[in-house]
Amino acid sequence: MSLATTTDLYEVTMALSYLREGMRAPAVFSLFTRDLPPGRGFLVAAGLEPALDFLAGYWIGPEDVDDFAAALHRPRQDLEPLLGLEFEGEVRAVPEGRAVLPGEPLLEVTAPLPQAQLVETFLLNQVSHQTAVASKAARCVLAAAGRPVVDFSLRRTHGLQAGMQAARLGAMTGFAATSNVAAAAAYGIAATGTMAHSYIEAFPGEEEAFRAFARAHPGPVTFLVDTYDTEAGTRTAARVLRELGLAQGCAVRLDSGDLADLAVRARRILDDAGLEQVRIVASGGLDEYGVDDLVRAGAPVDVFAVGTRVGVAADAPYLDSAYKLVEYDGRPVMKLSSAKVTAPAPKQVHRRPGHPDVIALREEEPPPGSSPLLETVMRDGRRTGPPDTLGAARERLAADLAALPEEALRVRGPRSARPVVSDRLAGLTRTVRHRIEDAVLRHPPQR
Amino acid sequence: MSLATTTDLYEVTMALSYLREGMRAPAVFSLFTRDLPPGRGFLVAAGLEPALDFLAGYWIGPEDVDDFAAALHRPRQDLEPLLGLEFEGEVRAVPEGRAVLPGEPLLEVTAPLPQAQLVETFLLNQVSHQTAVASKAARCVLAAAGRPVVDFSLRRTHGLQAGMQAARLGAMTGFAATSNVAAAAAYGIAATGTMAHSYIEAFPGEEEAFRAFARAHPGPVTFLVDTYDTEAGTRTAARVLRELGLAQGCAVRLDSGDLADLAVRARRILDDAGLEQVRIVASGGLDEYGVDDLVRAGAPVDVFAVGTRVGVAADAPYLDSAYKLVEYDGRPVMKLSSAKVTAPAPKQVHRRPGHPDVIALREEEPPPGSSPLLETVMRDGRRTGPPDTLGAARERLAADLAALPEEALRVRGPRSARPVVSDRLAGLTRTVRHRIEDAVLRHPPQR
Repeated sequence: MSLATTTDLYEVTMALSYLREGMRAPAVFSLFTRDLPPGRGFLVAAGLEPALDFLAGYWIGPEDVDDFAAALHRPRQDLEPLLGLEFEGEVRAVPEGRAVLPGEPLLEVTAPLPQAQLVETFLLNQVSHQTAVASKAARCVLAAAGRPVVDFSLRRTHGLQAGMQAARLGAMTGFAATSNVAAAAAYGIAATGTMAHSYIEAFPGEEEAFRAFARAHPGPVTFLVDTYDTEAGTRTAARVLRELGLAQGCAVRLDSGDLADLAVRARRILDDAGLEQVRIVASGGLDEYGVDDLVRAGAPVDVFAVGTRVGVAADAPYLDSAYKLVEYDGRPVMKLSSAKVTAPAPKQVHRRPGHPDVIALREEEPPPGSSPLLETVMRDGRRTGPPDTLGAARERLAADLAALPEEALRVRGPRSARPVVSDRLAGLTRTVRHRIEDAVLRHPPQR
Repeated sequence: MSLATTTDLYEVTMALSYLREGMRAPAVFSLFTRDLPPGRGFLVAAGLEPALDFLAGYWIGPEDVDDFAAALHRPRQDLEPLLGLEFEGEVRAVPEGRAVLPGEPLLEVTAPLPQAQLVETFLLNQVSHQTAVASKAARCVLAAAGRPVVDFSLRRTHGLQAGMQAARLGAMTGFAATSNVAAAAAYGIAATGTMAHSYIEAFPGEEEAFRAFARAHPGPVTFLVDTYDTEAGTRTAARVLRELGLAQGCAVRLDSGDLADLAVRARRILDDAGLEQVRIVASGGLDEYGVDDLVRAGAPVDVFAVGTRVGVAADAPYLDSAYKLVEYDGRPVMKLSSAKVTAPAPKQVHRRPGHPDVIALREEEPPPGSSPLLETVMRDGRRTGPPDTLGAARERLAADLAALPEEALRVRGPRSARPVVSDRLAGLTRTVRHRIEDAVLRHPPQR
């Protein structure tokens, strides 16, 4: 699979036309999300690092040209103007981990028009879904109110690549570990996981299974106790742990049923056995809503394992994102079609404690005491600095969440803070709209 | 990214324990979906071909062992029992494209226990999400009632791999084309796509844009007409098409607003210009519900482009799938935990026209006139035949849909047909449940 051909065909048809017309002037595209999905009070910027890797390595090779020609049923020579094309532009972007609001550009590309156009599909794909998943993951950490959250999503993500990204985004938003071994190795994340119901069932009974597991894995163990009957399973686990002299670092996992109630019962069984140190892991269909329910119920759950619903961002599996041309060859442009009006020109977002974010023209002076959200991360097709780290992203997120109003952070019924638009950007939007209405609509050009 | 390490860690911890205990007897795991998501009357089996490729190539290499050891904080030598492990089992599965119902096994693996366990995460990942997406895609084709549907999902799928799969699954369920060039090349699918709003905006006006596009792309063209005002855009498109002598194979695309109303207006403008042959493509947030609305409204839309919502299966982005041990070393096993009871033993599903599907024990005689859903597709870790084709899957789906009741095929409020369970399977389920309750719960083994 070539990254250059993993694109919508129309990027190619447009690029060919731009090249034919000599339209290689700088274009600015802005990637943003129009609205937040219901159930979100903020988004967590994500996907930038893979996007920059892609842009830095972008190159249309001979086999890509063959695939383009085949897709268009055109002779190869018609597509040869694209051969060797690389990305040589500038990227300004919100670093991963920052909290962003609707309408705020996540990323702006400035490059010769064909280049800026050709990378659209990849950038939207990576930034949209990673921002969607990171935003949900961050809400799980908020809901857990300080208790560890771990990622069990790999089996239900949309493919393995999505599972790798979900693990990375979990780590970025504060998860303690992932079940995904490859992601643990690739991103330096702690790995976690012990046994499935099948393991218990393969033995004659739970006790034999627990003992066998401890034989194979010296040190702390986690026993899954709900295969047949959770209370009976917990009692068996407690007996085995006591007999083996295990407690510190050990846990039981509850994966079904009324987790709040079962956690209370399991805690009592463990405490009665003198196993106060043994922790309780809850899993099974959890996301921020389930975690919040357990926390509010005061359930004695020590670790929340979230999976499917977080890995696919089940209640908001996509974002209403767009990659829109905002300037071409110095001329600000915009779209007017119903409900999808976009604002013209390159932008910057200014954030200031205690004030709403301001979406302004890039060229405007920043308000006093504000800091800009978009940073220049690529120039001439090369990164301006070393790759970002998950730790740095995690710190940015923690700082941004601390500054958001409580109502944006709520698990249920969150309300997003709304950015304001600067006077100059609002004025330019009006001017460009009038110019288009006048030039394009009322007086369509004649040949 | 190694495929062997892209797994939940617990598969590894369990496999190690199985090997230590000498538990290499044949295990049967069954992959099935407990319930259909709301809004689904059937599922389309998908993901088998990638799953078989994975199983045929499964091998734990030295670097995988290193990653496992690092994940577990164990010395490498502790993990060496896994080195060189391959998949040598049997797979019986429902071929891609077949309509399946809740509770019906999609796939059963019979292999030495460690092998059958280790492949769980991959199989669930591939089969679950591909079946989810294929099921939604099939509903789009049903909603379109014979008009072509094309795939525009790549920009919002959960990564590029998911975008490749969405294009493949669209083709499997009857889509006419995809925007994804790499998928078109990889799977032999027709590619489609012309221009974005950015293309229009990069020119001084729509007319210049349309003319430039036609210069670069001789032959039929599709003009996007809603950048500023859909009716004005359609009139401009009509004028350019007429002046260029184009009509046959050409189209206009509507991507926003009230598509039903705008399609009527666009059709009238085109017809008034003598462009009856020019077709109308509708896009923008469509899935089976939006397509159904347009079809029921009698909107003169000729081609439906669906994207985001189908590519992420937005209203049902995951399935309640499970990969459950049903037999170990000849002993049928099951799980009893609340709401997640599973049925023991290897199974077969018998389908007979005019009758409900029967889920039976594998060893049972088929009901007269029935045909089995699960076929043996792999033996001793090798495919039993050549890879399946998309065309064959498409034919299976068409035949199965023709046999489903109307209420299962409805776009809104579908009702699934329910399979029945054979007497022998029901009896065995009772027996095993009693055996477990007796042996494991009432009389827990003592050391």
